[in-house]
Amino acid sequence: MDIVIEIATTIVAQLQKPTLAFLIGGMMLAALGSKLEVPEPVYKFIVLLLLLKVGLSAGISVREANLVELAVPAALAAAAGIAIILLGRVTLARWRGVSEMDGMATAGLFGAVSASTLAAGMAMLDSEGIPYEGFIGALYPFMDIAALVTAIVLARLSAERKAARTLQGAAGGAATMTVGGGGGPGFDQGFGGDMIKGILVDTVRSPAISALLLGLAIGIFGRPESVYESFYDPLFRGLLSVLMLIMGIEAWQRLSELRKVAHAYVLYGIAAPFAHGLIGFGAGLIAHTLTGFSAGGVVLLSVMAASSSDISGPPTLRAALPEANPSAYVGTSTGLGTPVAILSIPLWIALAGAVIGF
Amino acid sequence: MDIVIEIATTIVAQLQKPTLAFLIGGMMLAALGSKLEVPEPVYKFIVLLLLLKVGLSAGISVREANLVELAVPAALAAAAGIAIILLGRVTLARWRGVSEMDGMATAGLFGAVSASTLAAGMAMLDSEGIPYEGFIGALYPFMDIAALVTAIVLARLSAERKAARTLQGAAGGAATMTVGGGGGPGFDQGFGGDMIKGILVDTVRSPAISALLLGLAIGIFGRPESVYESFYDPLFRGLLSVLMLIMGIEAWQRLSELRKVAHAYVLYGIAAPFAHGLIGFGAGLIAHTLTGFSAGGVVLLSVMAASSSDISGPPTLRAALPEANPSAYVGTSTGLGTPVAILSIPLWIALAGAVIGF
Amino acid sequence: MDIVIEIATTIVAQLQKPTLAFLIGGMMLAALGSKLEVPEPVYKFIVLLLLLKVGLSAGISVREANLVELAVPAALAAAAGIAIILLGRVTLARWRGVSEMDGMATAGLFGAVSASTLAAGMAMLDSEGIPYEGFIGALYPFMDIAALVTAIVLARLSAERKAARTLQGAAGGAATMTVGGGGGPGFDQGFGGDMIKGILVDTVRSPAISALLLGLAIGIFGRPESVYESFYDPLFRGLLSVLMLIMGIEAWQRLSELRKVAHAYVLYGIAAPFAHGLIGFGAGLIAHTLTGFSAGGVVLLSVMAASSSDISGPPTLRAALPEANPSAYVGTSTGLGTPVAILSIPLWIALAGAVIGF
Repeated sequence: MDIVIEIATTIVAQLQKPTLAFLIGGMMLAALGSKLEVPEPVYKFIVLLLLLKVGLSAGISVREANLVELAVPAALAAAAGIAIILLGRVTLARWRGVSEMDGMATAGLFGAVSASTLAAGMAMLDSEGIPYEGFIGALYPFMDIAALVTAIVLARLSAERKAARTLQGAAGGAATMTVGGGGGPGFDQGFGGDMIKGILVDTVRSPAISALLLGLAIGIFGRPESVYESFYDPLFRGLLSVLMLIMGIEAWQRLSELRKVAHAYVLYGIAAPFAHGLIGFGAGLIAHTLTGFSAGGVVLLSVMAASSSDISGPPTLRAALPEANPSAYVGTSTGLGTPVAILSIPLWIALAGAVIGF
Repeated sequence: MDIVIEIATTIVAQLQKPTLAFLIGGMMLAALGSKLEVPEPVYKFIVLLLLLKVGLSAGISVREANLVELAVPAALAAAAGIAIILLGRVTLARWRGVSEMDGMATAGLFGAVSASTLAAGMAMLDSEGIPYEGFIGALYPFMDIAALVTAIVLARLSAERKAARTLQGAAGGAATMTVGGGGGPGFDQGFGGDMIKGILVDTVRSPAISALLLGLAIGIFGRPESVYESFYDPLFRGLLSVLMLIMGIEAWQRLSELRKVAHAYVLYGIAAPFAHGLIGFGAGLIAHTLTGFSAGGVVLLSVMAASSSDISGPPTLRAALPEANPSAYVGTSTGLGTPVAILSIPLWIALAGAVIGF
Repeated sequence: MDIVIEIATTIVAQLQKPTLAFLIGGMMLAALGSKLEVPEPVYKFIVLLLLLKVGLSAGISVREANLVELAVPAALAAAAGIAIILLGRVTLARWRGVSEMDGMATAGLFGAVSASTLAAGMAMLDSEGIPYEGFIGALYPFMDIAALVTAIVLARLSAERKAARTLQGAAGGAATMTVGGGGGPGFDQGFGGDMIKGILVDTVRSPAISALLLGLAIGIFGRPESVYESFYDPLFRGLLSVLMLIMGIEAWQRLSELRKVAHAYVLYGIAAPFAHGLIGFGAGLIAHTLTGFSAGGVVLLSVMAASSSDISGPPTLRAALPEANPSAYVGTSTGLGTPVAILSIPLWIALAGAVIGF
């Protein structure tokens, strides 16, 4: 009972903090039909600065980190990303009215990580004075890439099996058909290693991951402390408040797209952030036991797992799974997954406080 | 005589301060044919941040304000907005060569408030160390909405009367005409409460007012102090200097549009900010006498009254008064009203210093 | 030998500093095919803020400067700009496979100054705690305008002579031809004073020079210290890091354009920044001897001379020399000249340290 009260208190207090207040404010503006818009270039610039900030601070920490302390949470982050996809495969992707391709694309986005949500989690921990590992941003690509690669590989394999079955059936019924004509040349090419390599390259080249990796690299190999402390860090919270406003407006506008798709997406968009956050929380607890990973780190691993990709994921999926319907996966992720994930951050803070203690 | 010298000294000193120096610099650049441009998305972003800043700081103050202290200046701000429109109706709108519709639309813009001009006034008071009520930004929507609603209602009523007269005359002259054909169905519909509600909704949904109200709401119901102090407040003066540069360039470019319209607009654009500022000063003096409203607050009420809307007003007027000619009202407001209002700020500071004392 | 070691140590240390780390990071991202882009309006805004910063700080210093102390380096800066063009005329513009027009346009860009490169030099000196004259930004237009005007005048004169020769030859071969028909009316008009005035006006109206002059004017005639210290100065290094990232990406992308032009451009793009930097260094040494110009000032004069114009130059050249091929001069300047100039900054620091001492 105490836990429930503690969680409820934390949530109410966090709703007043800038991060959530701007998110909710944005949703209310959009709901009231406000014509307020933040221009696209400004949105891209803010996201770039936040990703560089997260990358730089992680890189500076990685430089001095014990590599074992980093390797355990990194492996667990990747495992959490894969677990989220496997969960999506046996739930959303099997739902009546949901095509397997659309379901796997949606699971892929929910397994990938949102830099904005992670940044919101960091800002909330900072404002509470809760410490966490500096290298935490370096875990982002492990979970993100593991989830996207798993989702795309599983979706492609399943599409291939289905096509093969259709072909067999067709060949059996009409013996005159040229076998292989349906599959076409190169049907089996580019699979396995090549496909995974292609997805990896696409993901690493995506704007979000490459900005994060750039920050990481400069943090590790350069000496960016001066510019980090005079620019990236002080502007962080303010830019995040504007980003939350944009995401609130965007979330409300995307919600309407969900009317066109199966109800399963609405259920998934609301429930998945909680389920995935618990997977991340579990992974964090293992790291806490094995290497003394901090309670703040456990919160941020939960937040990463609960989040769904808003920048890097959609174009990667569109390229790799062109058959999937973007208004299903983007609508579910941006309209429901992201705001639910951001609003659930206080839950992970309260849970870590109750289970581990700060 | 002393007052004149004091005012002159204040004005010269203020011309060197960043706010006016950048405004004049922008006008000179444009006059010299410079190709310097500030991209539109940057302009929108700066205005958004300034409006959020003004709203947040007002909201934080409203939380602790005595509601009576707030109600008196709010009612007086609304009254000043209405008085400005009534003045415009008996001057500009009656001028030879000015259509009543165009005249009322121009008066509406001059009655509405410019966030940039208000921000410039705040920056000048801050740099002089002159205090003012924190809730002052909360007065903005009262004056703005009162002026826009009054202008649009009066213009619509007058257009209706004119149409009715034309109809009567036509009906008298040609009895065969189908009565009501000129007015069309629904001619009398949507008037009164519905029309006012429509204008209110449109104004509140406009980008400027909704950004300001969002800042107010987050300031009142949230706890945005940390982000306000680390981001919105420190960036305020710098962003304002860029905004003044943009407005100077824009003002000079718009001036040329005034060549196409009646001379009355030029006279109105130059004289109205002074007349309206005096109306605002009078309203402020009443508030000062009734509730001890500060001298700095009186200055800002004068500045609001002197200013003319540059962001929220034009689209609202275009929607509500489609017959009015935008190059008349936008040209007069952006080309003359706004720069004159900004340049007149030192006058209100000097006047308040002389009449009330800081 | 000691100098070589000292220079090498300085260069390695500087490569880790934010300015060069972000430049190299941007080039590596582009080389790896990253899709990261910084929106154009953001780029323009950052450049505007840096130019205003450089202008304001120079203006504030000019206000208190001894005019002789300023006049000597200004004259030497202009002389260096002219020397760079004359050097380009007897090297690149005479190369086999390089048209004289293209060669002079390229020399013009390399003689003109890059605000980003100058800003990078200032940031590196600041981070080393090396002092330099505050008015240094005021030297920028002297070198920039001198170089552009010289390059354009020489290119135009040479084109005129060539046209006259062709005409004579044609007239000799075919006596029936109407002399003057090839040149057309006004062939000799607009030359001399008028042409130089036209180039001057175009250069001063270009976005970069007019932003710099605006900052200078406000710094000299206004009192912008408060906004300079609270906004332009603190944001300087952070914005510069983003600008370096953009320039690194852009440089790599432009490199491919050089495949289409003569090899001479590649050689010039790599060697010229070093040769021009030495010209600037020599001019700085003279100023150091004559007026005690600081070692930091000598570094920045070398950096200005080594840099090639990325913003103001190209449109001016396009207007004045429409026959020249932009992918030759812009490709050489943005793809090679700018990154080589920025990467060579540590060389000038080390050289000034060894020759003059800090």
